[in-house]
Amino acid sequence: MTEQNLQILLASRPVGRPSPDNFEFVHTPIPSPGEGQVLLKIRYLSLDPYMRGRMSAAKSYAASVEIGQVMEGGTVAEVLESRHPDYAAGDRVLSYSGWQAHALSDGTDLRKLDPQQAPVTTALGVLGMPGFTAYAGLLTLGQPKPGETVVVAAASGPVGAAVGQIARIKAARAVGIAGGPDKCALVRDAFGFDVALDHRSPTFAEELQAACPDGIDVYFENVGGKVWDAVFPLLNTFARIPVCGLVAQYNSTGPFDGPDRLPILMRDVLTKSLTIRGFIQREFHAQRPAFYREMAQWIAEGRVKYQEDIVDGLESAPEAFIGMLEGRNFGKLIVQVS
Amino acid sequence: MTEQNLQILLASRPVGRPSPDNFEFVHTPIPSPGEGQVLLKIRYLSLDPYMRGRMSAAKSYAASVEIGQVMEGGTVAEVLESRHPDYAAGDRVLSYSGWQAHALSDGTDLRKLDPQQAPVTTALGVLGMPGFTAYAGLLTLGQPKPGETVVVAAASGPVGAAVGQIARIKAARAVGIAGGPDKCALVRDAFGFDVALDHRSPTFAEELQAACPDGIDVYFENVGGKVWDAVFPLLNTFARIPVCGLVAQYNSTGPFDGPDRLPILMRDVLTKSLTIRGFIQREFHAQRPAFYREMAQWIAEGRVKYQEDIVDGLESAPEAFIGMLEGRNFGKLIVQVS
Repeated sequence: MTEQNLQILLASRPVGRPSPDNFEFVHTPIPSPGEGQVLLKIRYLSLDPYMRGRMSAAKSYAASVEIGQVMEGGTVAEVLESRHPDYAAGDRVLSYSGWQAHALSDGTDLRKLDPQQAPVTTALGVLGMPGFTAYAGLLTLGQPKPGETVVVAAASGPVGAAVGQIARIKAARAVGIAGGPDKCALVRDAFGFDVALDHRSPTFAEELQAACPDGIDVYFENVGGKVWDAVFPLLNTFARIPVCGLVAQYNSTGPFDGPDRLPILMRDVLTKSLTIRGFIQREFHAQRPAFYREMAQWIAEGRVKYQEDIVDGLESAPEAFIGMLEGRNFGKLIVQVS
Repeated sequence: MTEQNLQILLASRPVGRPSPDNFEFVHTPIPSPGEGQVLLKIRYLSLDPYMRGRMSAAKSYAASVEIGQVMEGGTVAEVLESRHPDYAAGDRVLSYSGWQAHALSDGTDLRKLDPQQAPVTTALGVLGMPGFTAYAGLLTLGQPKPGETVVVAAASGPVGAAVGQIARIKAARAVGIAGGPDKCALVRDAFGFDVALDHRSPTFAEELQAACPDGIDVYFENVGGKVWDAVFPLLNTFARIPVCGLVAQYNSTGPFDGPDRLPILMRDVLTKSLTIRGFIQREFHAQRPAFYREMAQWIAEGRVKYQEDIVDGLESAPEAFIGMLEGRNFGKLIVQVS
């Protein structure tokens, strides 16, 4: 039997929480590269919260995945066959090949990886899009100053972990929020946050207040939901709130029950001169070279640590993705495809 | 009978809409200036929406007025008697003397005015705090680019009028929102906005959409309320929202009925990379010299017009202030004290 390509397609749009039947597995012939193309064998697929948005038809910063299309996603691949002058068989590359085992590329989405320099999986996490989201969002928009307090949720995940560690490098206090004692231990002991708090604690809001005796200067928003409610009253005058994700509400369908919190938000925006700023990392692409250089150095110096949660087999991707939206991953979630 | 000083004190804190009995009129002896002080006779008192905040005990960017204290406010005054080396009897000054007919000053709150250069009342409006709020907020935070669409409410008021006219000077389109046909005519015909819309129209939201065929790039927020609901869906990617006031909700006591609009706001902050930024003008005080220079020139060139609504007698201040919070003024509201 000839080897075939496995692809995972978007079969239907989820209403609320995605379910396995939103995905369809298909086997197709492995394509042949045309002139100027390479054939890739996908080694690792990144699973990230933003993919929930791509499954919806709602207008967003990026186009939706169409029904019947391969699910999108960042990948680490090996060049199997090359008809492109810049790539040779055996090259390891970062690509944007999506949820499949093989893919063609014309090279425009590729970046060569050097496995000697760093494990290739880091190109999907701490040295990739999540790490860069943390770096650009925190430094450009959050602008933490020495002694200020930076709070971030999902602090055991790849964005939150980098936010807190970069905050510490900039001499700010880092308060991380995570779900459960194991993740909190990771955030405190491995990533070196000043404080780690479990948002499941019944006294979470009080614990956060106690952990931020001088208030909050930067809240790096990547979850939304009830963490926001605990953070909001603690924001200082001139606090900055970069917003890169709202994973706690991605599965919500709305309308949302009252009371209406918008007037209270705007009142504090006004009286505390708050800055709320949504962003996606590619807006700051000019900073990528600086990011690669600085982050690689911080990792080499042991000042930035990372944690990966690698699940086995492309077939596991839907379940792993659904679980991630509920916080069941432990660190950067990656699928080992082959 | 010797002339006495009339002072208007905060008698009690309003719950919701202020009423005349929140104010108390007292007659006190006219004070004598000590060494280094001047005695001022107040000519004009500025009435501004921010004063509603000072009447409340709630924490804000400035301390509340205490019960029994003179209500705060910007004033134009004449020096009656001076024991300060920099001031002489007859000088016209901008001061922060509050709701009273006479006041002492040690000079720290004073700025000399030249009645030959501009009518002294403009120091309370287009060449004063409201004009500077528009200038600094629009140029520093709003950053309108040629061809972009700038929307502002309370466009017949001193802040809104300046926002729209400065936007036009910067080659942006200015869409002004005001209450009623007379104010809309002022905004369109005198201030030269591209479009003026009446927020009382039953089809206001549709009219705003038609007036902004390319969406909204800058919404200068000074009112809140239902104008926000019409503006919000029209905001473009990377839209900027400087927030300097929320007059439509100052009299609200909350909690606010649902649905909860906060998750929808945050969703669009994220998917449209919006910037929401509260501010008060004094944060930008370094720009004041540039403001005085540029704004005076724009007025001299006829590129910025202004409208004043001058009411007679300090006794009228409470009613005029209460009316302003409901939009009953026509242009910058000023009390002619004497």
